[in-house]
Amino acid sequence: MSPTPADRPLGVALIGYAFMGRAHSQAWRTVGAAFDVPDLARRVIVGRDEEAVAAAAHRLDWAEHATDWREVVTREDIDIVDICAPGFLHAEIAIAALEAGKHVLCEKPLANDTAEAEAMVAAAEAATARGQVAALGFTYRRVPALALARQLVEGGRLGTIRQAKASYLQDWLVDEDAGMSWRLRKETAGSGALGDIGSHAIDQIQHLTGQRATSVRGRLSTLVPRRPGPQGMEDVTVDDAAWATLELDGGAMASVEVSRMAAGAKNRLSIELFGSRGALRFDLESPNELWFLDATVPVAEQGFTRVLVTEPEHPYLEAWWPQGHVLGWENAFSNQARDLLVAIRDGADGASAGFAPDFADGLALQRVLDAIIASDAADGAAVAL
Amino acid sequence: MSPTPADRPLGVALIGYAFMGRAHSQAWRTVGAAFDVPDLARRVIVGRDEEAVAAAAHRLDWAEHATDWREVVTREDIDIVDICAPGFLHAEIAIAALEAGKHVLCEKPLANDTAEAEAMVAAAEAATARGQVAALGFTYRRVPALALARQLVEGGRLGTIRQAKASYLQDWLVDEDAGMSWRLRKETAGSGALGDIGSHAIDQIQHLTGQRATSVRGRLSTLVPRRPGPQGMEDVTVDDAAWATLELDGGAMASVEVSRMAAGAKNRLSIELFGSRGALRFDLESPNELWFLDATVPVAEQGFTRVLVTEPEHPYLEAWWPQGHVLGWENAFSNQARDLLVAIRDGADGASAGFAPDFADGLALQRVLDAIIASDAADGAAVAL
Amino acid sequence: MSPTPADRPLGVALIGYAFMGRAHSQAWRTVGAAFDVPDLARRVIVGRDEEAVAAAAHRLDWAEHATDWREVVTREDIDIVDICAPGFLHAEIAIAALEAGKHVLCEKPLANDTAEAEAMVAAAEAATARGQVAALGFTYRRVPALALARQLVEGGRLGTIRQAKASYLQDWLVDEDAGMSWRLRKETAGSGALGDIGSHAIDQIQHLTGQRATSVRGRLSTLVPRRPGPQGMEDVTVDDAAWATLELDGGAMASVEVSRMAAGAKNRLSIELFGSRGALRFDLESPNELWFLDATVPVAEQGFTRVLVTEPEHPYLEAWWPQGHVLGWENAFSNQARDLLVAIRDGADGASAGFAPDFADGLALQRVLDAIIASDAADGAAVAL
Amino acid sequence: MSPTPADRPLGVALIGYAFMGRAHSQAWRTVGAAFDVPDLARRVIVGRDEEAVAAAAHRLDWAEHATDWREVVTREDIDIVDICAPGFLHAEIAIAALEAGKHVLCEKPLANDTAEAEAMVAAAEAATARGQVAALGFTYRRVPALALARQLVEGGRLGTIRQAKASYLQDWLVDEDAGMSWRLRKETAGSGALGDIGSHAIDQIQHLTGQRATSVRGRLSTLVPRRPGPQGMEDVTVDDAAWATLELDGGAMASVEVSRMAAGAKNRLSIELFGSRGALRFDLESPNELWFLDATVPVAEQGFTRVLVTEPEHPYLEAWWPQGHVLGWENAFSNQARDLLVAIRDGADGASAGFAPDFADGLALQRVLDAIIASDAADGAAVAL
Repeated sequence: MSPTPADRPLGVALIGYAFMGRAHSQAWRTVGAAFDVPDLARRVIVGRDEEAVAAAAHRLDWAEHATDWREVVTREDIDIVDICAPGFLHAEIAIAALEAGKHVLCEKPLANDTAEAEAMVAAAEAATARGQVAALGFTYRRVPALALARQLVEGGRLGTIRQAKASYLQDWLVDEDAGMSWRLRKETAGSGALGDIGSHAIDQIQHLTGQRATSVRGRLSTLVPRRPGPQGMEDVTVDDAAWATLELDGGAMASVEVSRMAAGAKNRLSIELFGSRGALRFDLESPNELWFLDATVPVAEQGFTRVLVTEPEHPYLEAWWPQGHVLGWENAFSNQARDLLVAIRDGADGASAGFAPDFADGLALQRVLDAIIASDAADGAAVAL
Repeated sequence: MSPTPADRPLGVALIGYAFMGRAHSQAWRTVGAAFDVPDLARRVIVGRDEEAVAAAAHRLDWAEHATDWREVVTREDIDIVDICAPGFLHAEIAIAALEAGKHVLCEKPLANDTAEAEAMVAAAEAATARGQVAALGFTYRRVPALALARQLVEGGRLGTIRQAKASYLQDWLVDEDAGMSWRLRKETAGSGALGDIGSHAIDQIQHLTGQRATSVRGRLSTLVPRRPGPQGMEDVTVDDAAWATLELDGGAMASVEVSRMAAGAKNRLSIELFGSRGALRFDLESPNELWFLDATVPVAEQGFTRVLVTEPEHPYLEAWWPQGHVLGWENAFSNQARDLLVAIRDGADGASAGFAPDFADGLALQRVLDAIIASDAADGAAVAL
Repeated sequence: MSPTPADRPLGVALIGYAFMGRAHSQAWRTVGAAFDVPDLARRVIVGRDEEAVAAAAHRLDWAEHATDWREVVTREDIDIVDICAPGFLHAEIAIAALEAGKHVLCEKPLANDTAEAEAMVAAAEAATARGQVAALGFTYRRVPALALARQLVEGGRLGTIRQAKASYLQDWLVDEDAGMSWRLRKETAGSGALGDIGSHAIDQIQHLTGQRATSVRGRLSTLVPRRPGPQGMEDVTVDDAAWATLELDGGAMASVEVSRMAAGAKNRLSIELFGSRGALRFDLESPNELWFLDATVPVAEQGFTRVLVTEPEHPYLEAWWPQGHVLGWENAFSNQARDLLVAIRDGADGASAGFAPDFADGLALQRVLDAIIASDAADGAAVAL
Repeated sequence: MSPTPADRPLGVALIGYAFMGRAHSQAWRTVGAAFDVPDLARRVIVGRDEEAVAAAAHRLDWAEHATDWREVVTREDIDIVDICAPGFLHAEIAIAALEAGKHVLCEKPLANDTAEAEAMVAAAEAATARGQVAALGFTYRRVPALALARQLVEGGRLGTIRQAKASYLQDWLVDEDAGMSWRLRKETAGSGALGDIGSHAIDQIQHLTGQRATSVRGRLSTLVPRRPGPQGMEDVTVDDAAWATLELDGGAMASVEVSRMAAGAKNRLSIELFGSRGALRFDLESPNELWFLDATVPVAEQGFTRVLVTEPEHPYLEAWWPQGHVLGWENAFSNQARDLLVAIRDGADGASAGFAPDFADGLALQRVLDAIIASDAADGAAVAL
């Protein structure tokens, strides 16, 4: 079976209809209007609650809805399975879909634990050998300013990168009277701020620098350790803030700080890279701006340049609007869908460079997170990778 | 004939498939996923070039394409005619559509001259009396930060507004060797920077302050007066920069500056309002930010507050993404479509507050622009409205 | 008599001890510690109120105080007369000092009317021919970031400047219940916002672009026309806001806006220059920053660069602190004193390039201001210079 | 002996005439013009190189110069000994001056090692009991914006502070070919980036939050480990970057990052505080701005407010210039001199609240730095204080 039909649009199934399901729906609905990509059909959206998923199908413009993902992932008319279900379901769905010969896009995190992640990587390797694509959704790599950052680094504009600094700060737990929820219990959430948003920060550090962590030191904290639950005060069992330093294999040092207690920070993923020839700054709250310092221009004219990343010369931008007409958070999902569709098309042609990050990247990232947690458990002592 | 059918989705016809046609298509495709609005069907997109409009229909996901707008605007299954055609066609299409009982959304500028605009207003008044909606597309009113600005003014947070300052700067004509084009000839373009982007600046001033211009002084300039054409150097016959001061009926003074020669300004619509109790600042290059100064807080804590307009409490935002997940330029078109659909729905219920701006607003604005041009012709002397 | 003694420190007399007197005292006290300049002695400070001027002499560290400027300006041991007295005294003091063979630094505005200014220019020309320096204190020319701006323009980094935009906004009159004062009466203040702060904006436009106004259009306004006085409501007889456009002799157009009613603007002199090869932005509330756009770099890396003007390579900076250690408002006065002392020293050597701006510059600026007022009186019609 | 004479100006001796000596000279020269403080006399500046110190005395306006600090610190006419000598001399000079009954202002760091610091604290305690003041020069506490930050925290405007984040980044070692210097050798410099600039970051964290570190984890790094010396490549023996997390006794967590390798960072001390009711941000490259978020205002108007700290209502500002006229780096030294003189005056009146930070604060800070170094030596494991 060819994973990519030539004679009909690519059939997409979306598993999940909550926040991420909405964002991915937007991407599938929009990608073809912006980019030259293979035709696709939004065939089916899947969820457990029939009434809710039916409403979502109508609202988000999917042809059908379904409640059993197992049936859906083997359907003949489905070519791409897009997994926006909760993390604990990722492994099962992804493996089934890959084994059924489908291309898979899996939202981050790859899995809830390393064993699952390893099984997914095995399934993905087998599928990739058959010409399928197994993609992991670290969507922020497709924010044009961050894609431009990667281009500048690859082009040598920063020279040797020696220091990186990333933080991801949110404030939705500032109120100490805010009650318990499934996201604050380890058994349901899997992890806290580190896994949820720290994973983005660390993925960016490794992706942008092109360097991998070889040793980490970490500290996790639960700054508000008890919160009101239905039966009285309960222990919060995940971290609400975390810190780490990473030694990278290219010689750089990186720091990471994440928090859900940072009043005024709404979705502030901040990244700074410092190299021998230049530096970069980015803040997800102003996602159309990249600040670039070229340390090779005369000192009297040096400084951080605010590049408004909306020019046709910028990554993904030719497909969108004229210069100065900024993109929003959601556009990165369309950019991601575009890259996935291109990888599928080129794979069918034997010309694919694949899609990054893939499942193996997700597993490697999970191991960095695990090492940070292990370091914290060891009172902060370094843990090698 | 009821202008709003209860038994089927509202049928939309889009006239035009270029830049604005793409932006409006995006809005019609997206509005229902974000907002609670009546169902709609993207029935037909219209253009003169059959091959091109067919491709656009496929790409932008319209059910059909057509080349004759006259047939389309009378079709039974069409309820909304969305006009993104060139300005010189607006009057003819809009009047025909309104007379056919359709709701109309017309891109700005309303018309190429005042006579046309007056005919459109007359048609719109008659249509409105029949329960139709005739809407004008000054889309920036639907940028959430500017909608919030209007709320703050209406809520009295600025006190008496005494001074307003708007500029709209672009840089696509900086290169003096850039050649002639239809946009630089008066006979094809109708107007230059003043009409194209100055209209946005003036609409915002009047809309945000809630005050109307009663007297203006203006200056137009063609900073690069000759440019290379196919047969040698030609005269540029429209303004590439313009300045005006406006006396407003609420006692405030406003200034306007527009340019296509402002190196580094990509799409910089900047607005500042100064009142007796507060002030506001906005820049379209950072459209998710509104800077608000509350002059009633203790002096030691006063300053401009950067409000990241992404909270559910902000206009339009509840429909979109969680806090800190910013919108792009295109989302304002979906917001506009939402307001139009709500106006149509509520009009059918007899509960509509209508849609602003309407055609009469467009005519009033055109008169302000004409007065600025007349003032410039009079060497800058004031012209009353 | 040599205007510059070789055998003793230059003796300085300061006329005036209020706000400007304090700022100039700081400069005379500091200049020798920062720069290689001739030695000076702070000999005498002059004011009408003996007790107050005695206290000022003690506090501001002057050797003596005096109440009669006429005696002081002819003293043998005085070489430099620094005039910080109210504007209506400038002409009399400056002419007397120049005729007595002294170097003069006169605070802006040069004079209260054109006739006085013309007399001052005549006296200055005669004095300059004798080797004296007659300097006008538009101190902001010595803010390092603005001096750097001038260097960049002179070096051709902006190409042909086509558009300039300056505003000077303050907010000390926002409160409409704030009472009358001498500054709001034409007979005592001479002029309002235009003369007070608009003069700085226009000086910067002409200085930075190197172009002179040839024609202006202006509008003055008194946004709060009546204010409470001791005997009830009184008319405010000066402008509290003003607008102008200037045609410059190099082909550029400039706009100016000033106000004392701009809530939240503390001392906001904002300047933007747009050229064929680059652009510049400056804001006096962040005086150590110059924003420079180089339109010749690849588009993908273009944007405004925030140059933190604290490097030894920057104007005046080598004399001050290490990089990143910012200067304050007051340091520009020391820089000005430095330039004056160097002009005096080099004049004695026959090598002086003089000091700009001089009295003729002040007169020329006064004529621009007068033309703006005349234009406003003519309902906005253009006035040629 | 009274430590504070009533009958003559306070005599000041300054030990050291390099960078810090220049900054302190500026302060002593300026403080009396800005503030109501006891009169002082700049009697003597001390340095080892007679020619150089004589030139400095002339340039920086000191009455005398001297080469032997031992003689100076016991002079009858000296009341205040201001120590700007290299760190390894601090203990000896300070103890001698305190024992001679003088008030002492000692530049940071307090001493080069803990034993010295402990001896200094003992001498200071004895001196304080005699009415002397022993002050430590963490001058940034006197930057008005940081003083305002402290006021806001003390006034409860941040609620419970749970997270703090400070970094101090410079870039003077970015060039890997930059040669060895005494500052890069442990035996001469004592410490690297952590001691030099990390000390400021940690002082601010503890001062602003009002909380003390109880446990730290640290990591030091030498990102460019070898540099060219006169005899070939040499090992750099101090850290050029460092990271730490601090557990504070009020329940907050703090992070610190310092570097001399951060391209584009000139003197970037950045501080962020996150509390239950608000947040603060500060950056030393824009030292007149404090960004304050009040989390108690309605969400729709929330955001960081840029307070331009130049109002008479702000700390130290009434003494300086009108609103909007910003201060520079050097003014903080005058503010510090003011606080020292007031502490001396009030001490003589028995009313002194003393001066913070004092030597004990310096010792406590040294212990935090030592603990960070010890943690790094233990592979990152936590070290308690």
